[in-house]
Amino acid sequence: MSENNSVNGTIITEVFNSPFLKTLVQQIRGQDTYGFYRNWSDELILKPFVVTKQKKREISLEGEVDPATQARIMAFFRAVAAGIEQETGLISQVVIDLNHEGFGWALVFSGRLLLAVKTLRDAHRFGFDSLEKLAEEGEKFVQKGIDLAKRFPEVGKL
Amino acid sequence: MSENNSVNGTIITEVFNSPFLKTLVQQIRGQDTYGFYRNWSDELILKPFVVTKQKKREISLEGEVDPATQARIMAFFRAVAAGIEQETGLISQVVIDLNHEGFGWALVFSGRLLLAVKTLRDAHRFGFDSLEKLAEEGEKFVQKGIDLAKRFPEVGKL
Repeated sequence: MSENNSVNGTIITEVFNSPFLKTLVQQIRGQDTYGFYRNWSDELILKPFVVTKQKKREISLEGEVDPATQARIMAFFRAVAAGIEQETGLISQVVIDLNHEGFGWALVFSGRLLLAVKTLRDAHRFGFDSLEKLAEEGEKFVQKGIDLAKRFPEVGKL
Repeated sequence: MSENNSVNGTIITEVFNSPFLKTLVQQIRGQDTYGFYRNWSDELILKPFVVTKQKKREISLEGEVDPATQARIMAFFRAVAAGIEQETGLISQVVIDLNHEGFGWALVFSGRLLLAVKTLRDAHRFGFDSLEKLAEEGEKFVQKGIDLAKRFPEVGKL
């Protein structure tokens, strides 16, 4: 039992230690016009981003990508955009282009500079092994975007 | 009558004089897996790209954008990408992201450089006043893309 608790403890600490997870929660709460998440903890809001390998196998790739999944993909890349903005001041656009088979692109750009580019495959199964992994992936995108923005400031401001 | 003929003459000359229109026709013929357009003249293939102001008013903005219209938007930006490639050698991706109301983005990018960016509104009514206008708009996108590719070669090759 105490082990379980300490595991929970770790997860909570992760959310509060990861700037990316914090930004992600803020993005979701910020878009929450109807107050749906008002009484939800940060952990509960982030939970659907964790999709284990086994769960992924159980999600069918038939038909359109679930709107809730699409919203999560959008939230993830909005959080990437927000993370880059916090550091560079660049305000970017997020474009998610998914076809009916769950293939497509996620793009974050400012001016003429692509700050984040990801090809999406099997988007129906979008998710991460753990919150830690989610934080890590998000941070990686943010860091890469910041590096590009600093390397090519002129292009980002076009 | 002779006036009409000379008008037709002008249109045909336009297609053969505009590198953009030539590229656009090539794109459409290149995607024509089933030989649907095999016996069509270039003029006939390009005709649906011309949508007069009055015709635009007649096209309803309700419901999804017609797949044929979506295909035309895609062909237009593929031709832009091909035009840029001919001059710079950069091979680019084309992403068209349209929502159900006909709003969205058309993006052409290579590496981390956005060679063409267009916000789409009322995409149901995508079209140009004339073939001349179509050629002009296309050339403008191609030229702008070439300029950017030459100005920021490093970003386009990332």
